[in-house]
Amino acid sequence: MIGEGETVEHLIDLDIVERENGKRIGALPRDYEALGEQLDRRGIAIDAIRDKVAAFKVAVPSWGVGTGGTRFARFPGPGEPRDIFDKIEDCSVIQQLTRATPNVSLHIPWDKADANRLKQSASRFGLGFDAMNSNTFSDAAGQKQSYKFGSLSHADAATRQQAVEHNLECIEIGKTIGSKALTIWIGDGSNFPGQVNFTRQFERYLDAVKQVYAALPDDWRLFTEHKMYEPAFYSTVVQDWGTNYLIAQETGPKAYCLVDLGHHAPNVNIEMIVARLIQFGKLGGFHFNDSKYGDDDLDAGSIDPYRLFLIFNELVDAELNGAKGFDPAHMLDQSHNVTDPIESLMLSATEVQRAYASALLVNRKALEGYQDTNDALMATQTLKTAFRTDVEPILAMVRYQSGGAIDPVAAYRAAGYRAKVAEERPAVASGGGGIV
Amino acid sequence: MIGEGETVEHLIDLDIVERENGKRIGALPRDYEALGEQLDRRGIAIDAIRDKVAAFKVAVPSWGVGTGGTRFARFPGPGEPRDIFDKIEDCSVIQQLTRATPNVSLHIPWDKADANRLKQSASRFGLGFDAMNSNTFSDAAGQKQSYKFGSLSHADAATRQQAVEHNLECIEIGKTIGSKALTIWIGDGSNFPGQVNFTRQFERYLDAVKQVYAALPDDWRLFTEHKMYEPAFYSTVVQDWGTNYLIAQETGPKAYCLVDLGHHAPNVNIEMIVARLIQFGKLGGFHFNDSKYGDDDLDAGSIDPYRLFLIFNELVDAELNGAKGFDPAHMLDQSHNVTDPIESLMLSATEVQRAYASALLVNRKALEGYQDTNDALMATQTLKTAFRTDVEPILAMVRYQSGGAIDPVAAYRAAGYRAKVAEERPAVASGGGGIV
Amino acid sequence: MIGEGETVEHLIDLDIVERENGKRIGALPRDYEALGEQLDRRGIAIDAIRDKVAAFKVAVPSWGVGTGGTRFARFPGPGEPRDIFDKIEDCSVIQQLTRATPNVSLHIPWDKADANRLKQSASRFGLGFDAMNSNTFSDAAGQKQSYKFGSLSHADAATRQQAVEHNLECIEIGKTIGSKALTIWIGDGSNFPGQVNFTRQFERYLDAVKQVYAALPDDWRLFTEHKMYEPAFYSTVVQDWGTNYLIAQETGPKAYCLVDLGHHAPNVNIEMIVARLIQFGKLGGFHFNDSKYGDDDLDAGSIDPYRLFLIFNELVDAELNGAKGFDPAHMLDQSHNVTDPIESLMLSATEVQRAYASALLVNRKALEGYQDTNDALMATQTLKTAFRTDVEPILAMVRYQSGGAIDPVAAYRAAGYRAKVAEERPAVASGGGGIV
Amino acid sequence: MIGEGETVEHLIDLDIVERENGKRIGALPRDYEALGEQLDRRGIAIDAIRDKVAAFKVAVPSWGVGTGGTRFARFPGPGEPRDIFDKIEDCSVIQQLTRATPNVSLHIPWDKADANRLKQSASRFGLGFDAMNSNTFSDAAGQKQSYKFGSLSHADAATRQQAVEHNLECIEIGKTIGSKALTIWIGDGSNFPGQVNFTRQFERYLDAVKQVYAALPDDWRLFTEHKMYEPAFYSTVVQDWGTNYLIAQETGPKAYCLVDLGHHAPNVNIEMIVARLIQFGKLGGFHFNDSKYGDDDLDAGSIDPYRLFLIFNELVDAELNGAKGFDPAHMLDQSHNVTDPIESLMLSATEVQRAYASALLVNRKALEGYQDTNDALMATQTLKTAFRTDVEPILAMVRYQSGGAIDPVAAYRAAGYRAKVAEERPAVASGGGGIV
Repeated sequence: MIGEGETVEHLIDLDIVERENGKRIGALPRDYEALGEQLDRRGIAIDAIRDKVAAFKVAVPSWGVGTGGTRFARFPGPGEPRDIFDKIEDCSVIQQLTRATPNVSLHIPWDKADANRLKQSASRFGLGFDAMNSNTFSDAAGQKQSYKFGSLSHADAATRQQAVEHNLECIEIGKTIGSKALTIWIGDGSNFPGQVNFTRQFERYLDAVKQVYAALPDDWRLFTEHKMYEPAFYSTVVQDWGTNYLIAQETGPKAYCLVDLGHHAPNVNIEMIVARLIQFGKLGGFHFNDSKYGDDDLDAGSIDPYRLFLIFNELVDAELNGAKGFDPAHMLDQSHNVTDPIESLMLSATEVQRAYASALLVNRKALEGYQDTNDALMATQTLKTAFRTDVEPILAMVRYQSGGAIDPVAAYRAAGYRAKVAEERPAVASGGGGIV
Repeated sequence: MIGEGETVEHLIDLDIVERENGKRIGALPRDYEALGEQLDRRGIAIDAIRDKVAAFKVAVPSWGVGTGGTRFARFPGPGEPRDIFDKIEDCSVIQQLTRATPNVSLHIPWDKADANRLKQSASRFGLGFDAMNSNTFSDAAGQKQSYKFGSLSHADAATRQQAVEHNLECIEIGKTIGSKALTIWIGDGSNFPGQVNFTRQFERYLDAVKQVYAALPDDWRLFTEHKMYEPAFYSTVVQDWGTNYLIAQETGPKAYCLVDLGHHAPNVNIEMIVARLIQFGKLGGFHFNDSKYGDDDLDAGSIDPYRLFLIFNELVDAELNGAKGFDPAHMLDQSHNVTDPIESLMLSATEVQRAYASALLVNRKALEGYQDTNDALMATQTLKTAFRTDVEPILAMVRYQSGGAIDPVAAYRAAGYRAKVAEERPAVASGGGGIV
Repeated sequence: MIGEGETVEHLIDLDIVERENGKRIGALPRDYEALGEQLDRRGIAIDAIRDKVAAFKVAVPSWGVGTGGTRFARFPGPGEPRDIFDKIEDCSVIQQLTRATPNVSLHIPWDKADANRLKQSASRFGLGFDAMNSNTFSDAAGQKQSYKFGSLSHADAATRQQAVEHNLECIEIGKTIGSKALTIWIGDGSNFPGQVNFTRQFERYLDAVKQVYAALPDDWRLFTEHKMYEPAFYSTVVQDWGTNYLIAQETGPKAYCLVDLGHHAPNVNIEMIVARLIQFGKLGGFHFNDSKYGDDDLDAGSIDPYRLFLIFNELVDAELNGAKGFDPAHMLDQSHNVTDPIESLMLSATEVQRAYASALLVNRKALEGYQDTNDALMATQTLKTAFRTDVEPILAMVRYQSGGAIDPVAAYRAAGYRAKVAEERPAVASGGGGIV
Repeated sequence: MIGEGETVEHLIDLDIVERENGKRIGALPRDYEALGEQLDRRGIAIDAIRDKVAAFKVAVPSWGVGTGGTRFARFPGPGEPRDIFDKIEDCSVIQQLTRATPNVSLHIPWDKADANRLKQSASRFGLGFDAMNSNTFSDAAGQKQSYKFGSLSHADAATRQQAVEHNLECIEIGKTIGSKALTIWIGDGSNFPGQVNFTRQFERYLDAVKQVYAALPDDWRLFTEHKMYEPAFYSTVVQDWGTNYLIAQETGPKAYCLVDLGHHAPNVNIEMIVARLIQFGKLGGFHFNDSKYGDDDLDAGSIDPYRLFLIFNELVDAELNGAKGFDPAHMLDQSHNVTDPIESLMLSATEVQRAYASALLVNRKALEGYQDTNDALMATQTLKTAFRTDVEPILAMVRYQSGGAIDPVAAYRAAGYRAKVAEERPAVASGGGGIV
């Protein structure tokens, strides 16, 4: 099996990958075949599913390879990446072993660096760049105006201007490295009833976003992201998909809504929001993660894998129906507080693939029939049958056949990558939090 | 003090009202004056507030004067209204004593009756009719198609057609009795993932609503109401304000969104939704009530009175700013399971008035200043100062001066209305629920 | 394959079951074998799992075979059971086809009937009786005191006494038919702040429950059930597991807590509550169902199957560890509003079995190792690996080998049972709700 | 008017306080008198209420005078306190102007300092020390074992031992400065299903807490604090009051439960939890704050003032009934991200006092009568009448008569305290967060 290009550099020794794959290659074809026979009985060609899964990709966020934390504390792990170049190396490991994550999403100013060096660093590993992410939710060193009370929607025009210009700079950087989208998430909102006038704040936001939009290249898309709360705790400017839709509608045809799975009110039916945004041509893409309470930023599929499947059920439905303008961006956006970030991102990429693969197994013709005759039980069983089919042999086969690892975590651990970078990268002092 | 018209009939003996008012008329002017002095120091003329409050009205729902229940049981009270004419009598009592509820909102087919008799019955008490409410969330006796699996969005065209026609009939009835709006709330949705295709269901809904809209007289408005869940427990067609906004936008300029306070996800900032709908010209009105858990339909202001105030803070802001097309309909929509419905509706009308009166006390010039300078603490204190001012003397004075009762519940109880109707109206057997 | 006894009567023609099984018996052994091989690689003997699953049973509630509804409406299905004897027949069909539900749980007074006739009716189908359920959340016809304002915790002593006596009667009935437990769930609570004094209400409750406990036979258990809200909407007497635990502790060693999966606050970690109750020796059992919003009473595993698995992960852990006094009762408690209740109960029994089977696959030795070394990623993967293994071949084999149907719904539909009873049982008029 | 002692030092110039009071002293007696007359009509002596309010105190947390933040960013304000001595100075200002906060609660190791210097620093301003707070939710510099995977419940014995010893040290420090309680809140929990074994983790926790308890002086109390989530996002060891109660019960008579208002699941009825803990003798005290979404740590009473009132309604009820062992500790625990922390703490102390004052106005005899006769409407109105009475004149009079400021924020701002300390205390660089 051969990878994407001869010249691509691999930070995990290919011999180790081969050795680890060797331990598993005996059973894989048997499992794949048994599953194939089962699917064949349902009228599904396993190889066709495999090919679709092989073509499915999800971007990784540069900041995801660092250890996350909370306001109470951050407990760094060994070998924390020191800069964007370390981060790109870590991302390359994820891609090498999973073959599902060829693109990295940058966050500015955290990842600011010479554009040529960025491009070389990425292409060395066969990586590309996904959407650019601006940051106006924290103050950068030396910044003139503070974002303490807002950025794009700040009451003060100079602060808004600074935030707009930061976004324009993100576009400029993105143009040099081949990005095709800008994602805007802001912390603007309020902590007290009355602190802001909702309407005037949103008017200022819309005005600022339109300025950013005006600078967008023709082949770019603008993604705005809603979030119910945090860091603002009484209101946020873009609190839900309703406001997010209004933004996309007011701004223009290149403006789309981005759905982060953790940014909704308790109990909200997210898959339905996805369907609505598809229907009205404004689904831009996803930040995948999982959550039990708030914006927990846990690993995708770790808390409620069926919910992730139901979201992909909508995506596959739109894909097969040829929904107009449907081309969602996929990205992981998680906070890894107690795991090795590389391991979490590898498994999360796999979980997203798994949801996609499972959704491809849904018998949509039968489903439509049950829906049309109000056979709720058989309709939901049609989804369940697809969901409970263990598609791991398909995912493993895709990884194996594209040069990745059958078991990415096993290969990664066998290679001792973390210990190696821990030697090169100085330890970061624990703490950092204690904000309370 | 004189009521609205000589010829209006009063079911509560005016002597009793006078006697009850007599017990309280000593202190009222003193309290009113003391409050007036306090407000004067803040630059507020109490009489101007009083006049605005006097002009504020909220409609009562015909079904609200019956005892509510849950799927587990309904425990009827004494003297339950037997038909719409009994209901109108009960509503007249609310209006007589509070002077805040001159209009009644009908629910069809529950309140179906001869139009002339309806009009006469209402005008006998000086009452008018508010929005018409259609019912396609339950099956009426003799109905051809069942709404078990939906109505306006049903997979079957004949069922949708029946639901559309029912709404057209509601408009027709409304025209004969002077209503100017149709409110549509449906139970359509699903109980299982996969039971419905979200997009096709919503397309059918939009198509049906447009047919209803087409029959709307020029001076009518169409209100659609969103609800997160119940009776459907996995998804609802109009699940939130985002979808509700899309409906109003797709349908036409006479289509507006109605906000029921109990129909949102936990923790949602409802006052912000109100602000957004005002900003985009699509706030139609309210169903007032309160809730702690789900759509509890508790008495307005009984659980979180500050939230009700914050909503009115938005409404008063829009009123004073002359927000374009701003003319929200106010209606109570509650389920009275453990109280005398007339008492609950009287006090709830008062609570809504109270929130309005309190919001009128906000020093908006100061507030704007604090907002512009990010003085979050003083901004929120500006709201709090208004909220904690006890406006009861203003409300009582408005009732007294317009011929109502200073203490409506006391007057109502003194008059023995409930006991009297209990004699005329046969007792209803307890139970009815036990659906589990 | 042979059923449990020669003399047991089957309402689904055995020829039909055989014919339906015949369509599926070709693939089943192959799937079972393929899975067996996979499990064998993991060190798991599939036959041992099969035997454990075969021994696992879950009770069905008599009221579950009727169509449920909401306060807005109830839409009956065809062939609704008219009385407990019809219900027992329906339950026998569930047991015949799934072989997982040999016991029926009765609700008094709904299911009140001659004890001998009850026993004969059940034994005719090889059925037994599970826990007795009392009903003091609705008023029975002719009842002296109303439960409108409470039952076991009512302010009035006579009402409490009536509620106590009703529970004593349930025990008496249960004794005659071989039940060994009484389940108490009450609707007592309040709808308004201040309506009740929390402490005095709970004192009255404890006093009443102790009276019931005193009448409990030595070999019986008392199950109390907590619920956060509904039908009471501001507070409930037994609002959560904390209060439920206090009840069991105050009452005595035969008193246990029953966990209904739908009775918790949003986001609550239910599996952890289960673990706590096991640790402190007070887990009585379950009412299985699923929910997305409130107490939706949806089919078990239909919304969040991983949550159901995580609960069984705790149960299997306790079972293997020999947790002291661990002997939980399993019962389905669902409301079937849009499906054929028999079909929903058959599939839900299967879902519960599935969660149990999956939890048996967890490699607990490896899990403990990961837990002890804080390898969060591998620990959670250990659960995921078990969860995503498709155990359907095991469940199907258990059914087949014990005389049930490989595909219970297919066999049920092929037999036309619903159409047949619809002919015998008169149609029930739609409606019933409209309480609003 | 005279303060508590001649020798107490005041950081706010007394002339400024007098001047500011002078502006308001004209109206205050009139408002107080008008309110007094109104209360008199209800049978309440305003001076008795005033005296009770004057005796009511709430502690301030040392960490509360610094600016808070989130994982995304921290935006420091001017004049941030550099150490515990700066913090004590800031706390003295709060006490000087509000006269409601004579005690400061320390957090170790943040506030570690020479005991004599601590005592002198506090007594200089007439301050004392409240409960000690340990910190095992973040790693201190030089700490041997990391709390990344837990502290008191860690799988590793050495880490547990270190956490126990830290708590013992907190007791030792507390003994030297006159504290009488230790509050334990830990971040232990898990982020993934399976990461920990719930039962074994809790066993380890109980074992560790018992070791701490064993070192508690006879006249001390141990407060444990539950929290639903954050920093752990799948489970926490002490997730709710049920587990908290079990801890207090297992540990001993000096162990009590502390209730932080922001640490509950959505919709939970907190006042009922308070009542239950009182009833079972285990209410230790409060961390007051407010929240809309999660543990927002917003200013007390800023989001839902009625909820705060309802909690105090329980407390006053217990106080008047002489509930056994009832002696709750009151403390503010808030995060001030967008306000001057001194201002927020002053107003929050006032809000807590306000809730207490309002709860004192409840006509409890009438309330009991309504409760006993199930007059839900009048019962809840009894609470509402107390709540909506504006008690500000009482609070202002208490402050004035005890030497504080009628309007603490106005006096504070007039004195220019913040600007003054900003000159002395070096600016802190913005940022610190960006953990994401």
